Amino acid sequence: MKYQVYGDMLSGNCYKIKLLLQWLGIEHEWIHVDVLTRETHTEAFLALNPNAKIPVLVIEDETGKKEVLTESNAILNYLAEGTPYLSDSGLARARVLQWQFFEQYSHEPYIAVARFINKYQCLPKEREEEYYSKQEGGHKALKVMEKQLAAAPFFIGDNPTIADISLYAYTHVAHEGGFDLTPYPHIQAWLKRVEQVPGYVSME
Amino acid sequence: MKYQVYGDMLSGNCYKIKLLLQWLGIEHEWIHVDVLTRETHTEAFLALNPNAKIPVLVIEDETGKKEVLTESNAILNYLAEGTPYLSDSGLARARVLQWQFFEQYSHEPYIAVARFINKYQCLPKEREEEYYSKQEGGHKALKVMEKQLAAAPFFIGDNPTIADISLYAYTHVAHEGGFDLTPYPHIQAWLKRVEQVPGYVSME
Repeated sequence: MKYQVYGDMLSGNCYKIKLLLQWLGIEHEWIHVDVLTRETHTEAFLALNPNAKIPVLVIEDETGKKEVLTESNAILNYLAEGTPYLSDSGLARARVLQWQFFEQYSHEPYIAVARFINKYQCLPKEREEEYYSKQEGGHKALKVMEKQLAAAPFFIGDNPTIADISLYAYTHVAHEGGFDLTPYPHIQAWLKRVEQVPGYVSME
Repeated sequence: MKYQVYGDMLSGNCYKIKLLLQWLGIEHEWIHVDVLTRETHTEAFLALNPNAKIPVLVIEDETGKKEVLTESNAILNYLAEGTPYLSDSGLARARVLQWQFFEQYSHEPYIAVARFINKYQCLPKEREEEYYSKQEGGHKALKVMEKQLAAAPFFIGDNPTIADISLYAYTHVAHEGGFDLTPYPHIQAWLKRVEQVPGYVSME
C-alpha cells in the first residue's frame, strides 16, 4: 500500500493523521493543500472530496488502484486497525468512537473554530461575537474531558488510543483560541503523556 | 445482555438507535428523557452522561454489571458489530465512519438544528437569523449526499448499513427545517429504499 495525505498542518484535523502515521512509522507522501487560500475549493480538489475538506487519504494498492477516504477520524480508524491504538471489537472500540464523535460535535466546533478566528483571521470585528460565543461550549467540553481524565491516564484507560490523538489535536493548542487550561490539571498531565508516546511529532 | 436506551423520539439521534434495534430485532427498554424540559441536565442524568446529551445506551451483562455508552453513532457501531449492517474491517468499515462523521459535522448542525428551531421552538424572532443561516450549509450537505447516491443505491454500495441510518434520521424530516428535497431525486429514492428495509419503524 502507498499512502498520500492531502492536508495542511495548521489544521488539527490534518495533524491527527500525521501524528498517527508517525506513531505507526508508516511512510507516506504529504501533499500540502492551503486552506487559507481555499485550495480545498478548486475543481481538482472537489473531485477528491466533494465536501471540500481536508484531510483526504488516498490509498494505492499494488495494482495501482486508488481509493479515497475522508474525515479525519474515519482515516484514523482505518489506519489504526490491527494496531495497539484501536481495539479489535466490542465496547473498547466503541468507546474510542464515543470520544471521537464527542470531539467532532462538542469540542472542535468551539475550540478549533475559536482558534481559527483568533490565530488565522486575527479576530476580525465581524467575527468577534462568534469568537466569544465559542468560549462557553469550549469550556463545557474541557470540563467533560477533565472529569474523564481524573479517572484514567488516557481516554480509554491505561494506554493511548486514537481517541487521544483526536482530542489532543486541538486541545494542545486551545490557548490559541483563548482557552486557558490552568483550571484543568488532569488535561495538562494527559497532554504531557501523549507527548511521550514514541513517534510523537509536534504540530509546527 | 440487557439494553436500556435513554432517549427522546423527537431527536433524530435517538431515533437512529430505535431504528437499528428494530432492524436487528433486539429487545430493549426505552426510557424517555424529555429534551424540551431539559431532563438531560438533571443531576441523575449528568451522572450517566456528563455531556448532557441523549441518546445513552446502558448495557447490562449477566452478572448485573452495567456499562454506559454515549454518542448516537458510536452506539450504532457497537450494536451493529457482527451484523450485515457493518463490515468487519477495512475500507468498507471506515467508509461507514466517513459518512457518520460527515453527518455529525456537516449535516446535523444545519439540518437538525434548523428543524429544532422551526418545529420545536416555533421559529422565535431571536433565532430567525440563525435559522436562515443554516440553509446554505444544509443544502451543501444534501448536494454531497445526492452526488453519492447517484452512484449507488445506499451510502456504502448495494446494501444498507448504519451509515444509511445515520443520514436517514434527519434527512427524512429535513422539510421540518425548511429544506425542500425536490431538487434531490436520488435522495428521495434512497429514503424510500431505507423505508423498505425489514423492521423499519417510523419516527413518530
